[in-house]
Amino acid sequence: MGYEDISSILADAPDNWGTWGEDDELGAVNYLTESAVLRGVAAVEHGTTFTLGLPVGGDGGDPVWPSRDETGHYMLRDKGHVESGKVSREAFGNWENSDDVLHMFNHGTTHVDALGHAWYDESLYNGFDANSTKGGLDRCGVEHIADHGVVGRGVLLDVARHRDVSHLAHGERITLEELRECADAQGVDLEKRDVLIVRTGAMELFYREGREAFYGEYGVVDDGDRVLDEPGITYTEALAEWFHDMEIPFFGTDTVTAEQTLSEETGTRNPLHAAFLRDLGVAISEMNRLDELADACADDGSYDFLFVAAPLHVVGGSGAPANPVAIK
Amino acid sequence: MGYEDISSILADAPDNWGTWGEDDELGAVNYLTESAVLRGVAAVEHGTTFTLGLPVGGDGGDPVWPSRDETGHYMLRDKGHVESGKVSREAFGNWENSDDVLHMFNHGTTHVDALGHAWYDESLYNGFDANSTKGGLDRCGVEHIADHGVVGRGVLLDVARHRDVSHLAHGERITLEELRECADAQGVDLEKRDVLIVRTGAMELFYREGREAFYGEYGVVDDGDRVLDEPGITYTEALAEWFHDMEIPFFGTDTVTAEQTLSEETGTRNPLHAAFLRDLGVAISEMNRLDELADACADDGSYDFLFVAAPLHVVGGSGAPANPVAIK
Amino acid sequence: MGYEDISSILADAPDNWGTWGEDDELGAVNYLTESAVLRGVAAVEHGTTFTLGLPVGGDGGDPVWPSRDETGHYMLRDKGHVESGKVSREAFGNWENSDDVLHMFNHGTTHVDALGHAWYDESLYNGFDANSTKGGLDRCGVEHIADHGVVGRGVLLDVARHRDVSHLAHGERITLEELRECADAQGVDLEKRDVLIVRTGAMELFYREGREAFYGEYGVVDDGDRVLDEPGITYTEALAEWFHDMEIPFFGTDTVTAEQTLSEETGTRNPLHAAFLRDLGVAISEMNRLDELADACADDGSYDFLFVAAPLHVVGGSGAPANPVAIK
Amino acid sequence: MGYEDISSILADAPDNWGTWGEDDELGAVNYLTESAVLRGVAAVEHGTTFTLGLPVGGDGGDPVWPSRDETGHYMLRDKGHVESGKVSREAFGNWENSDDVLHMFNHGTTHVDALGHAWYDESLYNGFDANSTKGGLDRCGVEHIADHGVVGRGVLLDVARHRDVSHLAHGERITLEELRECADAQGVDLEKRDVLIVRTGAMELFYREGREAFYGEYGVVDDGDRVLDEPGITYTEALAEWFHDMEIPFFGTDTVTAEQTLSEETGTRNPLHAAFLRDLGVAISEMNRLDELADACADDGSYDFLFVAAPLHVVGGSGAPANPVAIK
Repeated sequence: MGYEDISSILADAPDNWGTWGEDDELGAVNYLTESAVLRGVAAVEHGTTFTLGLPVGGDGGDPVWPSRDETGHYMLRDKGHVESGKVSREAFGNWENSDDVLHMFNHGTTHVDALGHAWYDESLYNGFDANSTKGGLDRCGVEHIADHGVVGRGVLLDVARHRDVSHLAHGERITLEELRECADAQGVDLEKRDVLIVRTGAMELFYREGREAFYGEYGVVDDGDRVLDEPGITYTEALAEWFHDMEIPFFGTDTVTAEQTLSEETGTRNPLHAAFLRDLGVAISEMNRLDELADACADDGSYDFLFVAAPLHVVGGSGAPANPVAIK
Repeated sequence: MGYEDISSILADAPDNWGTWGEDDELGAVNYLTESAVLRGVAAVEHGTTFTLGLPVGGDGGDPVWPSRDETGHYMLRDKGHVESGKVSREAFGNWENSDDVLHMFNHGTTHVDALGHAWYDESLYNGFDANSTKGGLDRCGVEHIADHGVVGRGVLLDVARHRDVSHLAHGERITLEELRECADAQGVDLEKRDVLIVRTGAMELFYREGREAFYGEYGVVDDGDRVLDEPGITYTEALAEWFHDMEIPFFGTDTVTAEQTLSEETGTRNPLHAAFLRDLGVAISEMNRLDELADACADDGSYDFLFVAAPLHVVGGSGAPANPVAIK
Repeated sequence: MGYEDISSILADAPDNWGTWGEDDELGAVNYLTESAVLRGVAAVEHGTTFTLGLPVGGDGGDPVWPSRDETGHYMLRDKGHVESGKVSREAFGNWENSDDVLHMFNHGTTHVDALGHAWYDESLYNGFDANSTKGGLDRCGVEHIADHGVVGRGVLLDVARHRDVSHLAHGERITLEELRECADAQGVDLEKRDVLIVRTGAMELFYREGREAFYGEYGVVDDGDRVLDEPGITYTEALAEWFHDMEIPFFGTDTVTAEQTLSEETGTRNPLHAAFLRDLGVAISEMNRLDELADACADDGSYDFLFVAAPLHVVGGSGAPANPVAIK
Repeated sequence: MGYEDISSILADAPDNWGTWGEDDELGAVNYLTESAVLRGVAAVEHGTTFTLGLPVGGDGGDPVWPSRDETGHYMLRDKGHVESGKVSREAFGNWENSDDVLHMFNHGTTHVDALGHAWYDESLYNGFDANSTKGGLDRCGVEHIADHGVVGRGVLLDVARHRDVSHLAHGERITLEELRECADAQGVDLEKRDVLIVRTGAMELFYREGREAFYGEYGVVDDGDRVLDEPGITYTEALAEWFHDMEIPFFGTDTVTAEQTLSEETGTRNPLHAAFLRDLGVAISEMNRLDELADACADDGSYDFLFVAAPLHVVGGSGAPANPVAIK
């Protein structure tokens, strides 16, 4: 497939370059001012907490993008090391301990994409030179989001439940109109500066039916690459303008790619990554575990919550793992 | 130095085995019920957020325990890869992206210790067989805390500020009495089920004065090992009983070892790890960045906040990195 | 598939326990005495060298066993780091350099299996306790072979060429009789203490036709696991006795598993690993690149050479990567 | 210390650009023709083998350059995994096995430097653009040497023994004159196309006296960096011309840096890396274990041998681990 040129596609896209000064590397998370935080805190009703991070290294494996490795988790010390004499229990007064190490792709489990994860026309968000990514992101690395934290009112739009399906099929598109209908049907008012979370059911497919089912459903070969073709929203000028007008600080999904991977509307792959990260400065959280949160929202009919996410503070990271928390 | 036997030291220590049933692997985080969460939410006044995760892989390095590696952060893709033709920009419609990988010790930056991180007498917390740690923790792994999340009212006891020092010296002990005095001086009421955070200034030494200063101050050779001799609280039956009576769900510090490393009182190393993790089921967060939070608490005279921590959901992990958030 | 019990299968298998003393951890490589080395040296005719190590991390990927990761190769420093200011060229008098790191499975490319890689009935080669493998091989690790080196007369039996096929099909068996016929047809005399190398064409399939073709041909699901079903020799008492009588010091192939993976004769998986490594003490080299060597042997009709292999000296390794050399 | 500019230093240095054609990426290893190999084979007298690779991950650690990590060796499977039920022994007919993974710096143990490891004036060996190193060496990677192998007559110049010291002190220089005197004293004739190996005793210091002694002796702070200041030869035009005239195909030492690290003669660091790798195309092997080989040479008064080295075949590697073999 020949791809359309992203510069042309995004020629009229809104952006936030300069909105928070020429040195800004934080982007739309700037919208999460103290009053936005307090608005999130006010959304808490019951004190019920939900963590959105996927299991890392469990028996069934991890739903990674095809070219990425699943996380390796290796024991440096466990009871076996004591038994084989590699660690002396006597040395510590007869108490023993375990220790371990991870080989982990920054985007290999639930994570936050840094603003510098995607770019075009040689420039990152806010006009920083793309050469600054060489050997680690000097500009727009994930440490800015990690340092600030993402705390505010979160709203879940449960599109899978709205469609009454367990999960959206491969490549299905979610329109802006459908997001609005879903919100209306759920009875939730999306307010300015809400963290927006969209559920497709994709991650649940992986954990409910297994790896084969997941890659069978979403895996495709595109232009010679093994990729995923996941469902989701996609770029239109109207959608980007709506994100801009709504001052959405942060966007999350339960997919690996956060958007309709192969975008029919625009004839390219993942155009929203460019429109959100590079133009609007909207960071993205992917691979969220939304099943329990969604069930609870459906149960009490309340789709908002305090959203708290802080990725690992990886200096120069193009992204970093996270375990976001929703508090209803 | 010959160490005292931990079984003898902890012979009269309180424990929570069976408190939440014989299958429980979560421990004192069980205290963080919905009402405890709501009490934490009620502590929010201003909507100011603080992230407590240390930078990972920054220029000055990371303050790891001497036998652990600092995190390696490697770029899989950046602008250089495009320039050398390893990634085709055309393939994606002329947008480009960065990707990266981490080689990371689970306890190599700000993290949460799983209950199965320490044990003695062949048993983990709640009596689980220590053999279950072989090749990864089948019992009491960090995934239980990661899945539940740690959300509640946090209280900072800023012992360094209370002593009017930048940081406590190597090996200095903090007594239970001093914790109480510090709370009184700060004007904060410690309540049952509060998450307790103690500040010594140790991490700030590393970042303010550098690696050499940090290891110069705290590094020692003990019994042939290069270790740290950090300041902190240590095991006494009274202290453990106080944690038990206060139903403290979670304990955090700005040190690598969370306690007076070489415990004069007990003649061993890190006895609180055994008393907290294995006996009481109190998980521990180490290497927290507390400077900005502490300054803000001093500024407004208010030392409580909503504490939200969720380590990465590493299945079978003896611990996992985290970036805790405090919201004042 | 239910597997036959390896103890029963190997009940009458020959072994070398005690042959070189009760402390021996080197096994049949002991046969490579100075005279055996000189016999190898005498096999050199032309001075032509062939390296047998597969490319690691090339574009088409690596032919690993399905549960293993391909090697990750990450740049720590390259020209991009200079350009983005992460390394100062001035600091070194204007010369620059590259540096890199590997994440590599010990058995993830051409490698040597340590004697302690496989065992049964709680004992490794020479009767060492299998508990000694916990946390790294205290006994029979690959360091013994790495320290000694494997130098002697090598003989290639090119079974694929003998059958006049590009590569053997999945699961095909090579009998002892066929090895002898192949040697006869090649006009080579197998002598005692020769290093034996068998060619099936499997690796060439991977590099000639690609990953999909390779896993398509050899990949199967067995008992729920994704595994390979490769062609090769398999255990019979006669074959093991022949290896014993011939005092074969070392065995190599161009397959991942070195033998008929799913052994029809014995009703189990990889029984030769147990018979060779654990009983006879014959170390194995897998995933060798044999195409150029085989062509040269066919060209001049001479199938022997000086064989020189020394795996990386990994202390306690269950195996280690190697790049063996054949000199004709 | 301000460094002299490498371009000025090497203004009159000899080079091999174009010697083997404009596409050559192999360099001086091209000198190892079949006749050179046969000359090496002819050097074998006794059939005694010596492996030169250092232990990787042994108890006392590895003698790495200060900014590099020592190798991590992690068990993926051992007897402990069977005991804790993570691997079912029944699944394989009651035989069990071990498996492991390495986190390894390419230059973190005995290794070969690729020609593309060092450059200046924007060009690698033979004029290739230094931009080709971005994200992995497209030009002059270690795979060229790995594919060819390094086989020929090796000659050891045992400078430490010649000086009658256990090891040379930090920063000591070895002159060309001393190399010649050493050869004369040893009674060995250096011939054209010999692989040259120089012994300083540095690695033995690490293994005999330990890490502290090694870094105590050779570690220095230079221009703010912790580096080594090892003994060795250094760049002079005469020395480079001698290497050129002698057509030395490959150079090895028992130091981390292969040369006098802080070169007094030239006022820079490691100028030979640029002169050898980039100009002459002479690849370098560092961190060789030479003690046993040196003792054997001293014993029989014969300092030549068949040298066989083949680094791991890492595609695009700036270097790769190796376990060279010497056969006397």
